[in-house]
Amino acid sequence: MRQGEFELISRIRSMFSAPEGILGIGDDCAVIPRDADSDFLVSTDLLVENVHFLLKDIPPRDLGWKSAAVNFSDIAAMGGSPVGSFLSLALPSSVTDEWIGLFMEGYREMSEAAGAPLLGGDTTRSPGKLCVNVTVIGECGHGRAVLRSGARTGDLICVTGTLGNSAAGLKLIIEGLDGAELEKKFIAAHYHPEPRLDEGSALSDAGVHCMMDISDGLGSDLRHILNASGKGATIYTGKIPLDGELVGICSKYGWRALELAVNGGEDYELLFTVDKRTEKTLGVRHHVIGVVDDAPGIRCEGIQVKFEGFRHF
Amino acid sequence: MRQGEFELISRIRSMFSAPEGILGIGDDCAVIPRDADSDFLVSTDLLVENVHFLLKDIPPRDLGWKSAAVNFSDIAAMGGSPVGSFLSLALPSSVTDEWIGLFMEGYREMSEAAGAPLLGGDTTRSPGKLCVNVTVIGECGHGRAVLRSGARTGDLICVTGTLGNSAAGLKLIIEGLDGAELEKKFIAAHYHPEPRLDEGSALSDAGVHCMMDISDGLGSDLRHILNASGKGATIYTGKIPLDGELVGICSKYGWRALELAVNGGEDYELLFTVDKRTEKTLGVRHHVIGVVDDAPGIRCEGIQVKFEGFRHF
Repeated sequence: MRQGEFELISRIRSMFSAPEGILGIGDDCAVIPRDADSDFLVSTDLLVENVHFLLKDIPPRDLGWKSAAVNFSDIAAMGGSPVGSFLSLALPSSVTDEWIGLFMEGYREMSEAAGAPLLGGDTTRSPGKLCVNVTVIGECGHGRAVLRSGARTGDLICVTGTLGNSAAGLKLIIEGLDGAELEKKFIAAHYHPEPRLDEGSALSDAGVHCMMDISDGLGSDLRHILNASGKGATIYTGKIPLDGELVGICSKYGWRALELAVNGGEDYELLFTVDKRTEKTLGVRHHVIGVVDDAPGIRCEGIQVKFEGFRHF
Repeated sequence: MRQGEFELISRIRSMFSAPEGILGIGDDCAVIPRDADSDFLVSTDLLVENVHFLLKDIPPRDLGWKSAAVNFSDIAAMGGSPVGSFLSLALPSSVTDEWIGLFMEGYREMSEAAGAPLLGGDTTRSPGKLCVNVTVIGECGHGRAVLRSGARTGDLICVTGTLGNSAAGLKLIIEGLDGAELEKKFIAAHYHPEPRLDEGSALSDAGVHCMMDISDGLGSDLRHILNASGKGATIYTGKIPLDGELVGICSKYGWRALELAVNGGEDYELLFTVDKRTEKTLGVRHHVIGVVDDAPGIRCEGIQVKFEGFRHF
């Protein structure tokens, strides 16, 4: 069996060291100094058919939107503002001109919402699956990027919104349960995520200590922050914010809402830590779900949930 | 039938406009102002198995090298210096840890030669073919990027080295003719291109009017320069530089060397135009192959060759 993604990244990371002043592999974005006042942020994400999306299910406009959105979310996670993006498409012959047009419409809608146009890219045919690679460029104040490594003992652990809706949407898609109005809401959460750009920027200005976006799931992403910061955490599982209708749909289908919230992925809410005093003055909607401590690992107070990673298809 | 790559790019380009001061879609790189003295250059390239390379044939170390090299070549084409790169890999299950290790070794060798480390990326499994996407960041003096659109009537058209060796290598690979020493040289030209970074930088300093790298073939790439500049050209086909051994191997296999030089791709030499006076003082090895004029299209003086594009597999 081949090594997992995180082992591979760790192995690659050990082969390259970033020059003085540049932050390379290991955070949501790389940070490259721009001028006395600002830094550039760069991130890249590859979406592959049947791994990250099912081509037969996802509307092309949604895939275009989501391809841009998940990348802008990495800029949000550093507290930055998007500047522009670069799009590479490997297109199988089954994809029509009309499909591409709708995909690009969705991509443009997200780009316009983020105020960051497409600045370049590459297109090629694909003899296999559809692949979409996006690289985003953003900017933030010089030395002001919010990293994963800044969590301090006693910090409150917070998220900007409810978790689990995207994972519920994915389950509904996979199981073909897309008929009713309520189901549509969760499917939209999965197909049409909103990067928390305003929130990320405001949280950075307020002085949060570390931040990342929840793409692989709280269980996995909280571990990234704790590992990067050399800390542990206690999570009050009763405080993890859940959409009331998520609880409803989980009862309907016999799913565990808390399990989806912790180990489902792709909510694209921001996960951050902040000291208690600053937390009171944040001015950004958020939920305190735990506290950073010195004991390695993650402990749950309340209902016990395993903090694991999210696996795509 | 679906529209071709260039029609697609043109359609996408019409959907997005770059903000004031930023050069977006349409050249080898996008240009983003950095500070009073410098600009950032950004380019991205997607390589797909069975379109751009045959996984069973190409040694992994060469594919790693080439994936980085073809991107650094876009920085060279603007007259810039590389800063760093971002690598996305979609890996089919047939690819082993050892293969990935060798791929990354080759990628690192090229990155070190260019002085530009890997700064980030993404890895995922691929249920289809192997895909490699690279985004490079470079820099150049503010307002000094050499674009495709600067050709002037009377400019000399020049290339930095011989053309056609890479295309001969590709033919040898496809036809399984990889035994002898001479054949190996051409296969190496195809698998192990050298981006002309020093040359690009020196040509920019010398004041050439426009430049691009020859990736799709002289026939196609010269058209890009002429279209962007609103010019035509006369090419002296007898002056297109050919490796003596290319002529030899073409006799051996019954191929037309000039055809490979004009319509083969992936030589990664630089194609540029420059006024006659400056050409005499360039200080960079080059070959004058034609002249820019006002009549639309490309005319050949000497042996007639159709100036067409290069098609991958």
